Amino acid sequence: MLDAGITKSVNGNGNGTAAKGSLPLVTHEPQQKSVIWVGDVPIGGAEAVVMAGPCSVESREQVTATALSVKRSGAVILRGGAYKPRTSPYDFQGLGVEGLKLLREAGDIAGMPVVTEVMSEEDVAVICEFADLLQVGARNMQNFALLKKLSKTGKPILLKRGPSATVKEWLASAEYILHGGNDQIVLCERGIKTFDHSLRNTLDLAGVALVKEMTHLPVIVDPSHATGKRSLISATAKAGLAVGADGIIVEVHPEPEKALSDSEQQLSFRLFEELMSNLTRPVRTLFAHHPEFAVV
Amino acid sequence: MLDAGITKSVNGNGNGTAAKGSLPLVTHEPQQKSVIWVGDVPIGGAEAVVMAGPCSVESREQVTATALSVKRSGAVILRGGAYKPRTSPYDFQGLGVEGLKLLREAGDIAGMPVVTEVMSEEDVAVICEFADLLQVGARNMQNFALLKKLSKTGKPILLKRGPSATVKEWLASAEYILHGGNDQIVLCERGIKTFDHSLRNTLDLAGVALVKEMTHLPVIVDPSHATGKRSLISATAKAGLAVGADGIIVEVHPEPEKALSDSEQQLSFRLFEELMSNLTRPVRTLFAHHPEFAVV
Amino acid sequence: MLDAGITKSVNGNGNGTAAKGSLPLVTHEPQQKSVIWVGDVPIGGAEAVVMAGPCSVESREQVTATALSVKRSGAVILRGGAYKPRTSPYDFQGLGVEGLKLLREAGDIAGMPVVTEVMSEEDVAVICEFADLLQVGARNMQNFALLKKLSKTGKPILLKRGPSATVKEWLASAEYILHGGNDQIVLCERGIKTFDHSLRNTLDLAGVALVKEMTHLPVIVDPSHATGKRSLISATAKAGLAVGADGIIVEVHPEPEKALSDSEQQLSFRLFEELMSNLTRPVRTLFAHHPEFAVV
Amino acid sequence: MLDAGITKSVNGNGNGTAAKGSLPLVTHEPQQKSVIWVGDVPIGGAEAVVMAGPCSVESREQVTATALSVKRSGAVILRGGAYKPRTSPYDFQGLGVEGLKLLREAGDIAGMPVVTEVMSEEDVAVICEFADLLQVGARNMQNFALLKKLSKTGKPILLKRGPSATVKEWLASAEYILHGGNDQIVLCERGIKTFDHSLRNTLDLAGVALVKEMTHLPVIVDPSHATGKRSLISATAKAGLAVGADGIIVEVHPEPEKALSDSEQQLSFRLFEELMSNLTRPVRTLFAHHPEFAVV
Repeated sequence: MLDAGITKSVNGNGNGTAAKGSLPLVTHEPQQKSVIWVGDVPIGGAEAVVMAGPCSVESREQVTATALSVKRSGAVILRGGAYKPRTSPYDFQGLGVEGLKLLREAGDIAGMPVVTEVMSEEDVAVICEFADLLQVGARNMQNFALLKKLSKTGKPILLKRGPSATVKEWLASAEYILHGGNDQIVLCERGIKTFDHSLRNTLDLAGVALVKEMTHLPVIVDPSHATGKRSLISATAKAGLAVGADGIIVEVHPEPEKALSDSEQQLSFRLFEELMSNLTRPVRTLFAHHPEFAVV
Repeated sequence: MLDAGITKSVNGNGNGTAAKGSLPLVTHEPQQKSVIWVGDVPIGGAEAVVMAGPCSVESREQVTATALSVKRSGAVILRGGAYKPRTSPYDFQGLGVEGLKLLREAGDIAGMPVVTEVMSEEDVAVICEFADLLQVGARNMQNFALLKKLSKTGKPILLKRGPSATVKEWLASAEYILHGGNDQIVLCERGIKTFDHSLRNTLDLAGVALVKEMTHLPVIVDPSHATGKRSLISATAKAGLAVGADGIIVEVHPEPEKALSDSEQQLSFRLFEELMSNLTRPVRTLFAHHPEFAVV
Repeated sequence: MLDAGITKSVNGNGNGTAAKGSLPLVTHEPQQKSVIWVGDVPIGGAEAVVMAGPCSVESREQVTATALSVKRSGAVILRGGAYKPRTSPYDFQGLGVEGLKLLREAGDIAGMPVVTEVMSEEDVAVICEFADLLQVGARNMQNFALLKKLSKTGKPILLKRGPSATVKEWLASAEYILHGGNDQIVLCERGIKTFDHSLRNTLDLAGVALVKEMTHLPVIVDPSHATGKRSLISATAKAGLAVGADGIIVEVHPEPEKALSDSEQQLSFRLFEELMSNLTRPVRTLFAHHPEFAVV
Repeated sequence: MLDAGITKSVNGNGNGTAAKGSLPLVTHEPQQKSVIWVGDVPIGGAEAVVMAGPCSVESREQVTATALSVKRSGAVILRGGAYKPRTSPYDFQGLGVEGLKLLREAGDIAGMPVVTEVMSEEDVAVICEFADLLQVGARNMQNFALLKKLSKTGKPILLKRGPSATVKEWLASAEYILHGGNDQIVLCERGIKTFDHSLRNTLDLAGVALVKEMTHLPVIVDPSHATGKRSLISATAKAGLAVGADGIIVEVHPEPEKALSDSEQQLSFRLFEELMSNLTRPVRTLFAHHPEFAVV
């Protein structure tokens, strides 16, 4: 549950309405940090969390094998896309409800809560049935109708930063969710659009440090979308934790080169295990709850 | 109705499905230009069109007076926002259905078709009842769920370019609408986000010329959002038509300084009339002080 | 010669020194416009000027033929690069002093003043001997040592906007030249770097309108570097004049496909002639199908 | 000295000349890493280096006190600007040669090599007399005349990335120095210009990881200019080392609030000491050489 600092924030000038133009951003007293629980995993606490899984859910075998493998390597939340936002209508659009079911099933088998993206107001209800954490993708960060709908769900929301959103705009979108009554928000930096196309996006880690300073919300980093390049994910994940992020979210696939989407940036099981052993800050594990999958 | 060039485009590789990654962009033979009819107004024909009206519908008096005034000055389509995408949840969000009704009424009184923004999948049906042209705002350009819904309406769509959308991404979003069965699309350039904050956005008129070359769709220019500055709207509107745009869309308000949104960029009735009279003036002449080499 | 408005500007707070951080930008009273003479050509007057010529001076035949041809089509200043700023040291670097001589010779034969780029402090003296207008390229806009040197020459300077310079930074660089004692400055917009790589750069024509409003200096537009695409130069040149620019600068080559630099954006003699004939055409008319409300 | 990998690179296609357009970037075999010596400090070795000192050299007391303090905290190279690139000609321009002398003196007293910026071709000789490492500032990254001059000095060069330089353009500028005969190059990421002005620049740490992958040159990170915000320097410095940088360069001032330039981003002695204790990767110290200044 969020502390009094947020209530003050949401209320703005103290009487529940904010003056025009004076955005009551999600500010805080430095000592106050919100912890958001996703299933039995706390985000924003002393330990960093790692979310991992395939870009798209493609089949039962693919998502279950991935879930078991990333769990073994230390991930604590399973990611997987059932509804895929693709630039072109001719690209793979995801398995939809069938994908949700497979994701849920894989999460249950591995004993992990699951996160998946919601693209449509009309899908909110069904995704709430199957997922523990609902992701708003970068392209929908200012889809205010969707944000308002999500503010009524009571579910934790993973709000990705838009590709050209300033830090202030990002927090203002978080305010839409708060304003509607839902204070269970985790922010996610996934790279912004700049003039340099050497990589897929430009990862803004100083922006993460800034957001951590401006707000009490947890912030995680997505090195997969930020770089779009397998060989740089380990270095940028480490840097993300070093800058103060509360966790990372990484794409992992049994056979990245055969993936139906984003094959350039997905890690194999082996590379993900290597990544985990390289992380220098302690990450949260699930030993206690699921000893059968404990990291050796 | 669109010509054969589009059908080919939509079909991609000719058998109705496109290869992964090979976006069948909206290409064309140079001589083919689509004309989109909004009520009795053709967009994309030999003459440029001017759409004008308030940023937000605020009251019956405001929108009706504006409609009559801009009509008198030469506008042929009435614009007005009933649902407003605002960065902050604490800013004015629009009058909703009531605003739609007032807009329709004002359009009928002045004898003009109306254009208004749709922000939510759930509002599509009601907006279709009241509006002649449905606008997808910049922030929703990659709200694919909304695009798919609009592709089923049969209504003309005004697709604004996203603030960080490349020309290719913009056309790919148009493809979502086409792919779903609706070929009544007008594109709108309204400025992109760059490092320079001297103005609200950076108007990309060369991008307009490029889009006119790549596709047969009509393209209009929005100098109000592009510049955010009243004094520059006339110059940039003229430049938009000079670069080849099929029209412009301009914000006009009876008392801009009292507007509930975007007051800096709305024109008064008098300034709009001045703008219109400027659009028909010839461009400046060239300096040629060597009569022996003078242009014939 | 510049008017009193500039003197005030240069002096800042009136006693010759400006307070820290309070940049005395090149402001003006609206009615005051500076005219900069390059040889016998006035820039900033009632008529627009056209500068044209090859990207690089390559040979006597090439530059002379181009000079005569562009003059015949209506250009009044000859451009041509003798020192070429190339991203890579392995690309053609220009003919140097030999190029300067050939450019001067061609200008004299065709009866046109010449403009060329200066890249090095050490070349300033020799370029002053041969050229009428000295260009500071985009990459050197904040090469303050060069600007200071040029401020002592008394020659007219063509100051290109840097690829990531805000309007304020651009004018601050102009202030370096003014501050050193040279008020003969012409600004040139040539496109800025943005996320969209559809074209070589993003042409900022609203920025041109803004600069015209903020300063009394003449501003010209370079559609060749802005777009990097031959087929768009005519449309963007027209738009540049429509937005209020005082002229354009265009690359022309006898055989563009064989040019040693920028071959994609240079116009053939025939295309340049077409461009010139397009610049004087009236803009399109407006659609107004309701005669009862017709513009008088 | 650089290894064979570079020679191959400089030679391009193997015969000393590169094909037009085919930039022979500074590539390498993964196992080869260049070490650049600045005085007795190796950059690019197993330990990270920390360079620190004031933005501008302001007085003997200021620079000497800073040198002794940062040395005590673990810095191994002293930085300080004598020639200052300022956006406006009305801002403090640096002490020039007098500043160089004070910097050298302070470095000698503290037993540290010194780095300072060179802005003008004409200053190269005098700066070579006083400095151990010559910095090319961001604004001059594509000042090719300066790069060519520096390629003849034999001195180590610190090449900052331009504010809108792609990684490829940055390496191409390094090629200018290599091409002229100087292979003593250290790269420095200092933030790029993007749409987001929440901070002074956007620090591109994934770009650092990419450059480390593409080239054998050492790369350091400048969190002071990247963020422009004192409170974020520690977090971003840590992230810089975590992503693989070979060192950091940080601005430190006895009384930051009184600094003549960049006062917002300079650290006090106490904050710099805190920063050093927070760095998680081993940094190189000078114990061995100067035991009298050893860190306790």
